[in-house]
Amino acid sequence: MKLILIRHGQSEANLANLFTGWFDSPLTDKGKADAHQAGSLLKAEGIKLDAAYSSLLSRAIQTTYFVLSAMDQLYLPYQKDWRLNGRHYGALEGHNKQAMKDKYGPDQVHAWRRTFDVRPPLDPTGIQDPRYRGLDQGALRAGESLKDTLDRVAPYWQDTLAPALKAGQNILVVGHGNGLRALVKYIENISDDAIESVEIPNAQPIVYEFGSDLMIQSRQILKPDQS
Amino acid sequence: MKLILIRHGQSEANLANLFTGWFDSPLTDKGKADAHQAGSLLKAEGIKLDAAYSSLLSRAIQTTYFVLSAMDQLYLPYQKDWRLNGRHYGALEGHNKQAMKDKYGPDQVHAWRRTFDVRPPLDPTGIQDPRYRGLDQGALRAGESLKDTLDRVAPYWQDTLAPALKAGQNILVVGHGNGLRALVKYIENISDDAIESVEIPNAQPIVYEFGSDLMIQSRQILKPDQS
Repeated sequence: MKLILIRHGQSEANLANLFTGWFDSPLTDKGKADAHQAGSLLKAEGIKLDAAYSSLLSRAIQTTYFVLSAMDQLYLPYQKDWRLNGRHYGALEGHNKQAMKDKYGPDQVHAWRRTFDVRPPLDPTGIQDPRYRGLDQGALRAGESLKDTLDRVAPYWQDTLAPALKAGQNILVVGHGNGLRALVKYIENISDDAIESVEIPNAQPIVYEFGSDLMIQSRQILKPDQS
Repeated sequence: MKLILIRHGQSEANLANLFTGWFDSPLTDKGKADAHQAGSLLKAEGIKLDAAYSSLLSRAIQTTYFVLSAMDQLYLPYQKDWRLNGRHYGALEGHNKQAMKDKYGPDQVHAWRRTFDVRPPLDPTGIQDPRYRGLDQGALRAGESLKDTLDRVAPYWQDTLAPALKAGQNILVVGHGNGLRALVKYIENISDDAIESVEIPNAQPIVYEFGSDLMIQSRQILKPDQS
């Protein structure tokens, strides 16, 4: 059974160098093309999926669409869940990264971005987007550390993704830089310190092959120039 | 509560005047643009949806994507089901409509296309597409009359769509010419003869408003030039 992780393609906010998090920025045309290319790479590998999963954010849903479209597998069961969202960047969301460095200093911004258990300043307006209505509001946090993110990604792995893999399925998970960092940390058992330097590239499929008991057999990143 | 029916936008097979049915023909660029425009019309009406439903065919899934994208509601729960597929056109699928008229005569082709309980010749190869694996194969039929189609659409209405509406939801259903004809016949209680002349246009939202007990309060077709 295979797990394929893909971070969404380039978003408008990526292009503008903004803190994004739960801010719902759509893909750029480049982002759409890169997502389509990621799907073409998976198709060239002959990978047949059983199901797809993504966050509730448009750029991940768009990426899922273009990946599955390129794979000719749009018909697959597909579940969206807030627990695959990127890390909530609190009051930093929508702000330019360089402007925040100028204002708070590079060390503070680096700590917000990279230190496992450091939270950004909370968004005082909370979480208002209608897509999160109906969820347990107590579980949502308008400003998360990577640890907070892991604390909601790990249960999703346990209750949804791992059972699908154990049932012998090949699954696609489309997420975000920090949401996937949390998931990769959990799957690969990476330390709090070591995860600081792990980067998840946009729109490059990370293909895990699992054996029984979900032991990792192999891990490969598919890139266009290797195809 | 509102029910919005949309037939997929123009497909490659529509453009080539082919019998399509379960043949998985993708949207043309015009089909994508028309689907996006249908979503823009719904957005201009201020319609907020609670869930979306479509067939398992790519052109309906693509249409759903472009409609929801234009509405900024990609995050909605979205369920795909074979029972929303178009009518299976049996051995006629992939064949040019004019060529079939030339071969079998216009009266025979008209009967296949329009008479409620006339079946096309069955596809002798049956249903091989992997998207239908795992379904109750006894329920699938490689060549359906409109009556056969209704016999699987009606239970989907009863077990999935009607309960969502009764729960107060606004729902989008993206389907096909003949699948939606069957559904409209059922919802509006149209006779076997009268349904012969009912046409469902591509990518034009049909908006039903229901009162209690799912009585129809109003029915409106949204068209670009009326918006």
